[in-house]
Amino acid sequence: MAYAMGLDFGTNSVRALVVDTGSGEEIGVSVYYYTSGTEGILLDAQTPDLARQNPQDYLDGLTQSVQGALQEASAALEFDPSLVVGIGVDTTGSTPIPVDHEGRPLALDDHFRNELAAQAWLWKDHTAHQEADEITAVARRMRPQFLARCGGIYSSEWYWSKILHCLRVAPQVFKAAYSWVEHADWIPAVLTDTCHPKVLRRNVCAAGHKAMFSTEWGGYPDETFLAAVDPRLEYVRRGLPSTTHNVSQRAGILTSTWASRLGLPAGIPVAMGAFDAHLGAVGSGIGPGKLVKIMGTSTCDVMVAPLTQDLPSIPGLCGIVAESVLPGYYGLEAGQSAVGDIFNWLVEVIAPHGLSHDALTADAQRLRPGESGLLALDWHNGNRTVLVDQRLTGLILGLTLHSSPHEIYRALIESTAFGACAILQRLEAYDVHTDQIIVCGGISAKNTLVLQIYADILGRPVHVSRSAQTPALGAAMAGAVVAGKDAGGHGSFEEAAAAMTGLRDMVYLPREEMCRLYRRLFALYMRMHDAFGVKGGTDDLYDVMKTLLEIRSSARSR
Amino acid sequence: MAYAMGLDFGTNSVRALVVDTGSGEEIGVSVYYYTSGTEGILLDAQTPDLARQNPQDYLDGLTQSVQGALQEASAALEFDPSLVVGIGVDTTGSTPIPVDHEGRPLALDDHFRNELAAQAWLWKDHTAHQEADEITAVARRMRPQFLARCGGIYSSEWYWSKILHCLRVAPQVFKAAYSWVEHADWIPAVLTDTCHPKVLRRNVCAAGHKAMFSTEWGGYPDETFLAAVDPRLEYVRRGLPSTTHNVSQRAGILTSTWASRLGLPAGIPVAMGAFDAHLGAVGSGIGPGKLVKIMGTSTCDVMVAPLTQDLPSIPGLCGIVAESVLPGYYGLEAGQSAVGDIFNWLVEVIAPHGLSHDALTADAQRLRPGESGLLALDWHNGNRTVLVDQRLTGLILGLTLHSSPHEIYRALIESTAFGACAILQRLEAYDVHTDQIIVCGGISAKNTLVLQIYADILGRPVHVSRSAQTPALGAAMAGAVVAGKDAGGHGSFEEAAAAMTGLRDMVYLPREEMCRLYRRLFALYMRMHDAFGVKGGTDDLYDVMKTLLEIRSSARSR
Repeated sequence: MAYAMGLDFGTNSVRALVVDTGSGEEIGVSVYYYTSGTEGILLDAQTPDLARQNPQDYLDGLTQSVQGALQEASAALEFDPSLVVGIGVDTTGSTPIPVDHEGRPLALDDHFRNELAAQAWLWKDHTAHQEADEITAVARRMRPQFLARCGGIYSSEWYWSKILHCLRVAPQVFKAAYSWVEHADWIPAVLTDTCHPKVLRRNVCAAGHKAMFSTEWGGYPDETFLAAVDPRLEYVRRGLPSTTHNVSQRAGILTSTWASRLGLPAGIPVAMGAFDAHLGAVGSGIGPGKLVKIMGTSTCDVMVAPLTQDLPSIPGLCGIVAESVLPGYYGLEAGQSAVGDIFNWLVEVIAPHGLSHDALTADAQRLRPGESGLLALDWHNGNRTVLVDQRLTGLILGLTLHSSPHEIYRALIESTAFGACAILQRLEAYDVHTDQIIVCGGISAKNTLVLQIYADILGRPVHVSRSAQTPALGAAMAGAVVAGKDAGGHGSFEEAAAAMTGLRDMVYLPREEMCRLYRRLFALYMRMHDAFGVKGGTDDLYDVMKTLLEIRSSARSR
Repeated sequence: MAYAMGLDFGTNSVRALVVDTGSGEEIGVSVYYYTSGTEGILLDAQTPDLARQNPQDYLDGLTQSVQGALQEASAALEFDPSLVVGIGVDTTGSTPIPVDHEGRPLALDDHFRNELAAQAWLWKDHTAHQEADEITAVARRMRPQFLARCGGIYSSEWYWSKILHCLRVAPQVFKAAYSWVEHADWIPAVLTDTCHPKVLRRNVCAAGHKAMFSTEWGGYPDETFLAAVDPRLEYVRRGLPSTTHNVSQRAGILTSTWASRLGLPAGIPVAMGAFDAHLGAVGSGIGPGKLVKIMGTSTCDVMVAPLTQDLPSIPGLCGIVAESVLPGYYGLEAGQSAVGDIFNWLVEVIAPHGLSHDALTADAQRLRPGESGLLALDWHNGNRTVLVDQRLTGLILGLTLHSSPHEIYRALIESTAFGACAILQRLEAYDVHTDQIIVCGGISAKNTLVLQIYADILGRPVHVSRSAQTPALGAAMAGAVVAGKDAGGHGSFEEAAAAMTGLRDMVYLPREEMCRLYRRLFALYMRMHDAFGVKGGTDDLYDVMKTLLEIRSSARSR
């Protein structure tokens, strides 16, 4: 018997999972909720886009969740902590943390403890909106290849935008930071005592998807380019390594200090970290031809394609990065900025008749496609793929004096499925073919109506991951792979997937009649999508949403 | 002292009003709610567009409401029923009633009592949608002049559409009907014993706005045209008179039978009837340069222009009819199919957080123009003016995960004001100028936020009628005019208006800063208006709403 430990650092909590490397059985789990700020997020009333985290929460959560998971696992007769052979880690991202010259987060220093800019800059911090535009503009002029692999637009959620914004608004923090470390790199480094910037290993998932790293152009973006954005960024660039590592590689081995603190064997390998969605895809058994959709408040779509395939740039795709998901494969990432969040908006912010998700679902279930006459655009939080535009907004059309809450609820579900369909079609158009769709994440466990609508709109069977916690499972799989076959782990991710992942028996099959009806509605969705989302199209209403946002921001700034 | 009686037959009730002809003081009022069907409307579960009324309700309501109003008036020391000098009548329309060869409604005959097609076809009955399209098509081909004066499209709510539909779905009723009489003609005829089709007088308001009557082409539409629509319509045409009458003319004098039943003096004159909106405008003191907006669940806009003015056809205007409002003037009618109904939709059908109109208004009041980032189209019930298209639907855009109920509420109010602005601009573009805007109707009494937003969006002061029941007041004014000056009434509507109508002290003034902000938003509204509402424009999304409705109707027909 052998076990692997997976650590999944989410937006509000960290989860530790103990998994049997042979069967994939999940025998112990524990969740720790961050205690700082609001549900673990540091906010600033004056700056609505700001979202930071206290790195101390990560350390506290690490210890507590591992101890809790081991304790639960100990209920299994055959389990003993000494049988844990490896550890894997996933986190949110891009969530960079400014660190001092020894690799210690500035936020853990008394001097910076109360400084928001010195904390971890959580993925959904959008304060660097302006800086993202600047970086995009310079890249478009000087290094179009940088943009080609990240969907054509550099985001405010990403590494360089956030560092540049810090430089502007908190120069004292920027100056004190020797380097900026992704959360997904920092945790494995902590466990293996490799935090020192001279030895710290960086994972290719974060570097490639969020920091413009690629071996095609020799690693991180060159100093000339960065200097054109802002000369002071050169300093950050000089502290970065020339190579990165994937999740089949080790960050190091567990130190005895951490081993005794956690109750794990010292010396076991810790895998390189990766983002939650990517290891979630791994935990869903991703492989060539499989599209894994991690569906929750937002959705992340992950695919892989062999490094040997000559992959084109795919416009609108958030990222195509070698080995960001699995070694030997390109990792392809797409996504929708809000999915479950849109349904929650209706139930919580609008609260029609105070109806619950369950009540709305029950009524929405009885509707046929098109019966409500409603059509929506799923842009309440912008559009990540394929338009890569956070300044798009939601739309509902077809309203009458009888349009009811459950009709709107269903139209919103359908809108997200149409958005998913736009992503699938974009991939197909660039010869990235999907043989199987697998969903995981919060929605996959909860809402059968959503999954049936997705099957009918995508026109494909929709499978569901067996595990309800695929990111942590994927992290544990990385732990098993870096442990290796001889130690009771696995020789490859293919082997690990075969042994440790699976699908539920329930498959959502497309129903031909519904597919036919939805094809007509999807054509209308794309008309609206292109009219409002694409500049210079035939029906060009592109400026309408932009102008509204501009008017809104001037109205609010008074 | 002299008094006039106004009778206002609304959608759910009839109201009788006793007014002092000298001061306009309203000294007695009584409302009778129809008892048949659902809130006075006969519905059919199988036919959602159907809305009929039982003529017996009109007779019962007539007696009860007049008796009630006289009783209340008797509390005034100086009042005596013998001082009532004339009666006026308004009703909804087009609300045609099939009658036998003696002018008696078929519905009052035992044989037809339970036959829906034999009842009064209420204005908002939309079952004749297909027939309206047929009539429009034939008119476009053969008699474009018929359409030019009714906005370019003949409506399913109107006289000939309803008769044609009856012919198709209930031939036994069509065959039994010697003629079809507007509700507004039938009531005065009942009171004056002039129901017989050979003597019945028809009012120009209903005939001109809804039945294609005009002296320009010699009266009602010619038999050749009607035969091209359906040869059997010729029969109906032959029963119609060659002339019509306006509200300054008498239908006849009150019979002794009705006089004793109602408690009024026998022999007093009864004015020709007209539609509620038109007499509502009269009760608001309409005259040249005054735009009267009757704002309730829907809005009706009424203006007058001298018959001497060479008035062009105005595309999109529901009707331009000589003397339909005041003698000596063209009556111009425009309107919005839903206004208060849209606000009621949010509060009652969606019921966000169960908030009331008052609560939403209080929060919406605090928003600045554009602050919500939302923009809506006020087409939940189609667009009457200027697009004349019932197959348009509502739209809300600019939604985010934070868009709240009161923001949506305000956006819906603004959308109806933008719709009102489109109407005003269309009138101005065709040289029908507005010096003064007067609102009356339910909303004018209730919601100051709505009126302030209208002032800011229209960029004009918004005045409010003094009377809260202007249609009944206008009807009473017609009663005073047909009574004449010598009897204690008035020599003209100008005189009656000077004596009997007035404005409230409170005027809603446009605020320049808000006007400026709204001008930008109105430009965006018009972009959306034209994109979705105008075929063949630059940004042509005209088919989107149509196709959705088509898909909806096929989904529902299964």
